[in-house]
Amino acid sequence: MSILSKTVASYLQNASWIRRMFEAGGKLKARFGEDNVYDFSLGNPDLPAPQAVGAALRKFAERADKPFAFGYMPNGGFGWAREKLAACLSGEHGVALTADDVILCCGAAGGLNAFLRATLNPGEEVLGIAPYFVEYGFYTENHGGTFRAVDSLKDTFKPNTLALEDAIGPTTRALLINSPNNPTGVVYDEGNIRAIVALLEAKSKKFGRPVWLISDEPYRFLCYDGINPPSVLPRYPYAVCVSSFSKSLSLPGERVGYVAVSPLLAEKEELMAALNLTIRILGFVNPPVVGQHLMAGALDSHVDIGIYTERRQVMADVLSDAGYAFQMPAGAFYFFPQAPGGDDVAFVNTLLEERILAVPGSGFGCPGHFRLAFCVDKSVIRRAAEGFAKARRTVET
Amino acid sequence: MSILSKTVASYLQNASWIRRMFEAGGKLKARFGEDNVYDFSLGNPDLPAPQAVGAALRKFAERADKPFAFGYMPNGGFGWAREKLAACLSGEHGVALTADDVILCCGAAGGLNAFLRATLNPGEEVLGIAPYFVEYGFYTENHGGTFRAVDSLKDTFKPNTLALEDAIGPTTRALLINSPNNPTGVVYDEGNIRAIVALLEAKSKKFGRPVWLISDEPYRFLCYDGINPPSVLPRYPYAVCVSSFSKSLSLPGERVGYVAVSPLLAEKEELMAALNLTIRILGFVNPPVVGQHLMAGALDSHVDIGIYTERRQVMADVLSDAGYAFQMPAGAFYFFPQAPGGDDVAFVNTLLEERILAVPGSGFGCPGHFRLAFCVDKSVIRRAAEGFAKARRTVET
Repeated sequence: MSILSKTVASYLQNASWIRRMFEAGGKLKARFGEDNVYDFSLGNPDLPAPQAVGAALRKFAERADKPFAFGYMPNGGFGWAREKLAACLSGEHGVALTADDVILCCGAAGGLNAFLRATLNPGEEVLGIAPYFVEYGFYTENHGGTFRAVDSLKDTFKPNTLALEDAIGPTTRALLINSPNNPTGVVYDEGNIRAIVALLEAKSKKFGRPVWLISDEPYRFLCYDGINPPSVLPRYPYAVCVSSFSKSLSLPGERVGYVAVSPLLAEKEELMAALNLTIRILGFVNPPVVGQHLMAGALDSHVDIGIYTERRQVMADVLSDAGYAFQMPAGAFYFFPQAPGGDDVAFVNTLLEERILAVPGSGFGCPGHFRLAFCVDKSVIRRAAEGFAKARRTVET
Repeated sequence: MSILSKTVASYLQNASWIRRMFEAGGKLKARFGEDNVYDFSLGNPDLPAPQAVGAALRKFAERADKPFAFGYMPNGGFGWAREKLAACLSGEHGVALTADDVILCCGAAGGLNAFLRATLNPGEEVLGIAPYFVEYGFYTENHGGTFRAVDSLKDTFKPNTLALEDAIGPTTRALLINSPNNPTGVVYDEGNIRAIVALLEAKSKKFGRPVWLISDEPYRFLCYDGINPPSVLPRYPYAVCVSSFSKSLSLPGERVGYVAVSPLLAEKEELMAALNLTIRILGFVNPPVVGQHLMAGALDSHVDIGIYTERRQVMADVLSDAGYAFQMPAGAFYFFPQAPGGDDVAFVNTLLEERILAVPGSGFGCPGHFRLAFCVDKSVIRRAAEGFAKARRTVET
């Protein structure tokens, strides 16, 4: 009999695509040298943290020897840190948020788990929109729920409102959206958000209980061409925004994120009490002390977006020149081109022969495409150009 | 219909005793001033972190501006950090541990949740020994299990092996012990550990699958009178030690802990793969970067134990002089005296009238006692002496 729980034992049988590419990449790098492998598989920001982060760290270090420097604080983070965060988010989202409308937590992943633990009953459903971040399924199943993804519109990857309307039923507890999107780079516009909200309002009324709208937004800061993603918070009382500083401050390992709730929510106090509880009982207890100091000290900064803008253009040129079909990402740092030949897994293996690491769309519930993360130097993208061209020709002939 | 999950809504109806005392304390402090309230309710270490922590932080801060300084690492922590930890634990536990035998996580609470998610099937049971840390119940229910506590031996609070033998059944997945113990200060001796291991071996054989032994040990570093707590790791293949640096390095807010597995475990690789997965999918993703640097730089240090030794004596004198019945704690920083009059909740309210904050034993599954945390200055303990004496007299008359 297994020493593990049945679900976890079964998860281990199916290693994620990102994991498999990571392992394949390790072998290639060992054989050909790090510089001769073009790794577009990981969304691990390579830009240094903004200088304000280092400055905040050095300032905090001055008082590290004081009692309680690393002590417990409220489960949702220091009051002063939440106050600063709320002020910053008020500007970003166009709503008046106070320290009582936000909680800090261990990354967006921690925030999503805390929220689902707080709201989901076993047997209930969380809906997503494919392609989607594969971890959403695990987060939902952690709390006894079922995750189901509804396909987005072909090619544009915008929400398919009609399909969503069909999918929402009496056991649907939440719709989980992600804009700017990983893996497609799509940013939902105001019309998309309005349509989703109208749908959720109608369904909440029909089923006699609210369907939550969870908006996972770690890439909000990273949009191109002057796009400003509309916020869900001023538009729907049962909306929450979950995010982190992993990408904007290049802090993914320090685990600082947050949940912000709509100020329209009548049951706000109840939800915040629940989140403070679930942060505690899931074992997070509180967001890391140091990370909160870094976040508060660097809230007005972010990594150099100009660098990502340049890389996006270089990658677009490389893909165009090689004849790939793709949509220009409006946000985040991913391309999601069509897989030549149509079989994404086969094509990713073809790319591997060119020492190019990508992730098949199958890993995001969207076969026929593949994901390229461009958080690598421009020179890496340029050097991969020949491999991209060759891989495409291999499949066409 | 509630916006929350049923379990979380019900948890919110029953605020923990620690929480209630915290709130009562806040009111007293506002009314009488901080210095006139004697707060023994919280296990929040008041000693500063050892100097090695500040030094490690300043050293890390020097390279905070480099790319990937705060980047992702393996879910179980940096290889170099696990190597250092394993070397340190090998000495403490008297077994040869390598980096592959330990994972770092977000505090002991994170480690316990990651372990339970990895091993527990819904409907299975986790056994504990009362009195116990109240969070164990939540941690178990998070993963669909049921927590059940078996009373310890009266007065000594040592494990009641006969009662445990009766309690372990075919759905028992794990026994969760805590030594040095919160709230009693009891340290299990080698005989206790041997008896538990013999029992679990017999039951594992009987039911055809292993019963895990989880040893929660954040107070291992803090024993008095030269006591050295025996380790479970060399004694039972299905034993894991879960701990943190919250108390030993006064780092509770930074969330650094670990799970160490027995090197005797044949399925070690499987368990470690599962823990790496559950750390990821529960949303921890990895232990905080900065905390790992602090831990690694200060592994050989701990807070000044001499200070806790002195406080223990002062508290013992105060309680003796006032005529309380108690057992001298062998470890940790708690006393767990009998409640005069027998009703712990009533007596804790009597103490409140003397502006003394304590936690009733009912909050630990052990009515008739109350817990006093002595992570406060000696002067606070001394100034509370009169109140302790008066409260006891009030009940006796």
